[in-house]
Amino acid sequence: MTNFPVIYLRKGAERRLKAGHLWVYSNEVDTHRSPLTGFEPGAQAELRAASDKPLGTIFVNPHALICGRLISRDASHGMTPQRLTQRMEAALAIRDRLFPQPFYRWVFGDSDGLSGLVIDRFGDTVVVQISTAGMESLRDAIVRAVQRLVHPAAIILKNDGKMRQVEGLPSYVEQVHGPQTELLRVVENGVRFEVPLAGGQKTGWFYDHRMNRQRLQAYAPGKKVLDVFSYVGGWGIQAACAGASQVTCIDSSAQAVDSVHHNARLNGLQNVDTIEGDAFDALKALCDEKEKFDIVVLDPPALIPRRRDQKAGEQAYARLNQLGLRLLERDGLLVSASCSMHLSQERLIDIIRSSGRKIDRFVQLLEQGHQAPDHPVVPGIPETDYIKSCFVRSLTGFF
Amino acid sequence: MTNFPVIYLRKGAERRLKAGHLWVYSNEVDTHRSPLTGFEPGAQAELRAASDKPLGTIFVNPHALICGRLISRDASHGMTPQRLTQRMEAALAIRDRLFPQPFYRWVFGDSDGLSGLVIDRFGDTVVVQISTAGMESLRDAIVRAVQRLVHPAAIILKNDGKMRQVEGLPSYVEQVHGPQTELLRVVENGVRFEVPLAGGQKTGWFYDHRMNRQRLQAYAPGKKVLDVFSYVGGWGIQAACAGASQVTCIDSSAQAVDSVHHNARLNGLQNVDTIEGDAFDALKALCDEKEKFDIVVLDPPALIPRRRDQKAGEQAYARLNQLGLRLLERDGLLVSASCSMHLSQERLIDIIRSSGRKIDRFVQLLEQGHQAPDHPVVPGIPETDYIKSCFVRSLTGFF
Repeated sequence: MTNFPVIYLRKGAERRLKAGHLWVYSNEVDTHRSPLTGFEPGAQAELRAASDKPLGTIFVNPHALICGRLISRDASHGMTPQRLTQRMEAALAIRDRLFPQPFYRWVFGDSDGLSGLVIDRFGDTVVVQISTAGMESLRDAIVRAVQRLVHPAAIILKNDGKMRQVEGLPSYVEQVHGPQTELLRVVENGVRFEVPLAGGQKTGWFYDHRMNRQRLQAYAPGKKVLDVFSYVGGWGIQAACAGASQVTCIDSSAQAVDSVHHNARLNGLQNVDTIEGDAFDALKALCDEKEKFDIVVLDPPALIPRRRDQKAGEQAYARLNQLGLRLLERDGLLVSASCSMHLSQERLIDIIRSSGRKIDRFVQLLEQGHQAPDHPVVPGIPETDYIKSCFVRSLTGFF
Repeated sequence: MTNFPVIYLRKGAERRLKAGHLWVYSNEVDTHRSPLTGFEPGAQAELRAASDKPLGTIFVNPHALICGRLISRDASHGMTPQRLTQRMEAALAIRDRLFPQPFYRWVFGDSDGLSGLVIDRFGDTVVVQISTAGMESLRDAIVRAVQRLVHPAAIILKNDGKMRQVEGLPSYVEQVHGPQTELLRVVENGVRFEVPLAGGQKTGWFYDHRMNRQRLQAYAPGKKVLDVFSYVGGWGIQAACAGASQVTCIDSSAQAVDSVHHNARLNGLQNVDTIEGDAFDALKALCDEKEKFDIVVLDPPALIPRRRDQKAGEQAYARLNQLGLRLLERDGLLVSASCSMHLSQERLIDIIRSSGRKIDRFVQLLEQGHQAPDHPVVPGIPETDYIKSCFVRSLTGFF
């Protein structure tokens, strides 16, 4: 039985939590009754509604807009190394069932009941990202649990995410176990990749599109493919391995473009070339040159990073999808992806619809993809549902 | 160059068509300027906006609420046996790329530019469904095109859909080619099925959930599975073939239950049993008996057949999903499907969210499935987007 200090919500502020969300915003706290200033970042507290009804336990950070993160809906359950390990085990169990090899996101924050913690497995290397003061307080317990549960050769704390600043945490990358690791080795859908750890994006690899890339393999044989915003070649290299006749990857980062070539060689491919540059500019240039592709993959970074970017962001998606459609052969496939939490699948489909109408294509939405099951969505936490992909056949002169 | 009589729309009524839809409603026609009574059901016409702007060609049925179905956006293109064949070829091309064997929906009506026509392939047997007067006028051309394009052993016209009555067409089933066929043979995701043609639902088999059933196979090994609204066992038998320890199928139709047993034998399975009866009653009885399953599949018929059934229908989905969740083990999987056009994926997820909250489960949405690519969606025709499935992990005492 725990005996945590109590934080009281304002009247009615428990509604979102009761509906399934796990976050408390600072303006929802009754600070007269329970001043947040009394709490250290990362402290645990009991959470109660204005009516005194217990809602559970939370990690507190008095300095953050999201000042509370639910640990449990049982007010007697604080976070302990044991509970942490149990949740990590539950997360591991479902990944191990679904994936034949240890290449996946093992822990996906709130979705695995571990707000502020992300863990990715790359074979015998484990990359941990801690983004909240609450999880930082468990840093050593996390490392021990990783060791105990999967006995990795290397553990890296990649604690350099943007959110850490908000939480008042220092930014650093530190290898806490094993021989110095500089390269992450990935196997996804049977294809090998190597990604330099330093300078890589996020944990180094985005497993979230795994199932969508697998589906791309079904369409790729014999096709000429353009992979836009390619990063290290996740889509393009997999298409090439599946039998694409020719693959072109576009990315603005010289390091990413180098990685594409490295990964092409790694898989014995000789039909992958690259364009280093701004994606929009490169697409326009290809249009001007009357280049055509059988398949165009658009996987941009979040073009709607914040809610207030909605309009400009949707316009950017529209421009991008129109350019993509223009570059297709008469019977071509557009793979249009989005990782913007603020762009619903429905809106993305509508953008594709209007882009198709504008240039008179008959478009058939063949498949709708989402994030892979190692990135579970918690209904009630819209922030956990962010990946979309649309596989769109575009026909010219058909209708 | 065609010279069709002209049908004029009322002012502004072209908006939906311009956005991508293919249907004209009778109240959108300017009947003073162009009386529908002058048209035979199935006749072709040119469609113009009130401004006189040509919008394309349509099939007309003066007796139906949907009185016009776009044939082409080019006013000089009527429907001819040649254009029909071209579109059937385009539809065939993408299926042949994606599916290794000829078991799929070859033509999916509007989505393949052939409003009123559905064609399914079952190996060397082809089942055709015609639902509009326009397509009925091409009946012989359709049969000839099927013969020319795939040389089947048998062609069956299963012209007994509900929509035919609305279109003023007779209801009949007729084999127009090949030796008398009584059993449809299906191979889906490597699993064999046989379905009696007489009394089977729709064309006899629902290919639309193919990809979702394939995903179920990844979760099934070693698990005890309940398949609710099983029909001939599409989900359950595939789970059993993938290694489920035990499968129970529930269906209210005695013929469907017989088919489940037949298909279990066909695949050499001895661990499939059945419950014949109303699904809701059967689920309640299983709850009362404290039965538990590792996986519960809910694939009900459309519980929201019409817009006005929205509220009652959503309540039925909620009851069903709660019962499903109650029957799960502490770490179980709910596969919740819907074929209601009027239930969005978003609403289905919200129903699962609230069902989970009501009985205090921590639910993780692992996968979101849609209809298979042989049932393309046309963005702009919401009616073509109807299949949803949610793979939901439910954890008890976890959070």
